Amino acid sequence: MLTLYFAPGGCSLAPHIALEEAGAEYEARKVDFAANEQRSAEYLAINPKGRVPALVTPRGILTETPAILAYIAQSFPGAALAPVADFYEFAEMQAFNAYLSSTLHVAHAHGVRGTRWADAPEAIDDMKRKMPEVVTSCFEMVEQKMLRGPWVMGKRYTVADAYLFTVAQWIEKDQVDTSVIPRVLEHRERMKQRPAVAKVLAREAAA
Amino acid sequence: MLTLYFAPGGCSLAPHIALEEAGAEYEARKVDFAANEQRSAEYLAINPKGRVPALVTPRGILTETPAILAYIAQSFPGAALAPVADFYEFAEMQAFNAYLSSTLHVAHAHGVRGTRWADAPEAIDDMKRKMPEVVTSCFEMVEQKMLRGPWVMGKRYTVADAYLFTVAQWIEKDQVDTSVIPRVLEHRERMKQRPAVAKVLAREAAA
Ligand SMILES: N[C@@H](CCC(=O)N[C@@H](CS)C(=O)NCC(=O)O)C(=O)O
Ligand SMILES: N[C@@H](CCC(=O)N[C@@H](CS)C(=O)NCC(=O)O)C(=O)O
Repeated sequence: MLTLYFAPGGCSLAPHIALEEAGAEYEARKVDFAANEQRSAEYLAINPKGRVPALVTPRGILTETPAILAYIAQSFPGAALAPVADFYEFAEMQAFNAYLSSTLHVAHAHGVRGTRWADAPEAIDDMKRKMPEVVTSCFEMVEQKMLRGPWVMGKRYTVADAYLFTVAQWIEKDQVDTSVIPRVLEHRERMKQRPAVAKVLAREAAA
Repeated sequence: MLTLYFAPGGCSLAPHIALEEAGAEYEARKVDFAANEQRSAEYLAINPKGRVPALVTPRGILTETPAILAYIAQSFPGAALAPVADFYEFAEMQAFNAYLSSTLHVAHAHGVRGTRWADAPEAIDDMKRKMPEVVTSCFEMVEQKMLRGPWVMGKRYTVADAYLFTVAQWIEKDQVDTSVIPRVLEHRERMKQRPAVAKVLAREAAA
């Protein structure tokens, strides 16, 4: 039995979808950001970094989206959620996930979490102002150089699709210029047709 | 044959050490940041993101430090550079690497690459000013919650050690408060004793 700690619409949506696609037995527990629950002593005992996602497994607790995604794919080989037997293809998929985590997600975070990196109100404001441009350029990189189509890795659906779909949930709010990323938008629509995705979206919306 | 594109002292030091530890046949090619070579048309054809590391393999080009590290560990199982057969332990190691890439390295980058996320000179200055405090708090997380000792994952040396050593090269320049991270400093000294590490440091220094 696995327990996923998630915040609705946060990056934890990616492992949430992956667990559902894998047919895993799991429970999804909401962390209430409005109540700052991610900084409560209780949650810090689960993830001292004070972030979601965190995945409680029988052996211990895992954090960091790309690591959790790889773990789910490797643990449920029958679901074929990653090219786990081919180290090169697996690394390509991991590189995609690492870019989303270390670059695109970080660019997005400058819109609402600027206090992580600056204190002056003018600095926070300037990051917020520039954020749409930076996030757009990250999505353009995905559009032009990374997303193969119809799925991220080409013909085979993987956990990288769940991750791209997750960050693509932020596009409107982040005022991304959608005119330059038609393929990312098509991918997002394609994802919504998947029963596992629809189910998880409904669960997070109701949480 | 593998080719690693690196910048001396950059995050590419981690895969550079890993390749050496693996006993891989590889060539290391310097990307000259002083000449802005990472943004040259030639290099952008190798890595459109304009960053190091990039690893040219017989099957294609890999980017992103954590993905490259996992690839090296999986490709040279004889070198035992990761718990590749145990998905849970592998995920723990990957979570460590993901944290360095998406959080610690990003915090460091606010010191010299603030223009990625802001335009106003005052904003760039404020990020630079806050950077030592943010990087110190990342190293404290590593010190207190992540580094098991003697190696990152405990008894077994892994590619995560090469990565921690790499970011620990930046400690003095980033004005990290070293008084709160004695175990990270010990780890750095322990790493310097390894022949592969000494060899790669010398090669990067001479490049
Ligand atoms: N590097 C982590 C980042 C996780 C992260 O920043 N999660 C956000 C939600 S999308 C969070 O928990 N934010 C809460 C906060 O900053 O207080 C990953 O990729 O999983
Ligand atoms: N997410 C990438 C980041 C790579 C990165 O930012 N590398 C730096 C060197 S440490 C770089 O190439 N900077 C050049 C630039 O920004 O122009 C990774 O973890 O590999």
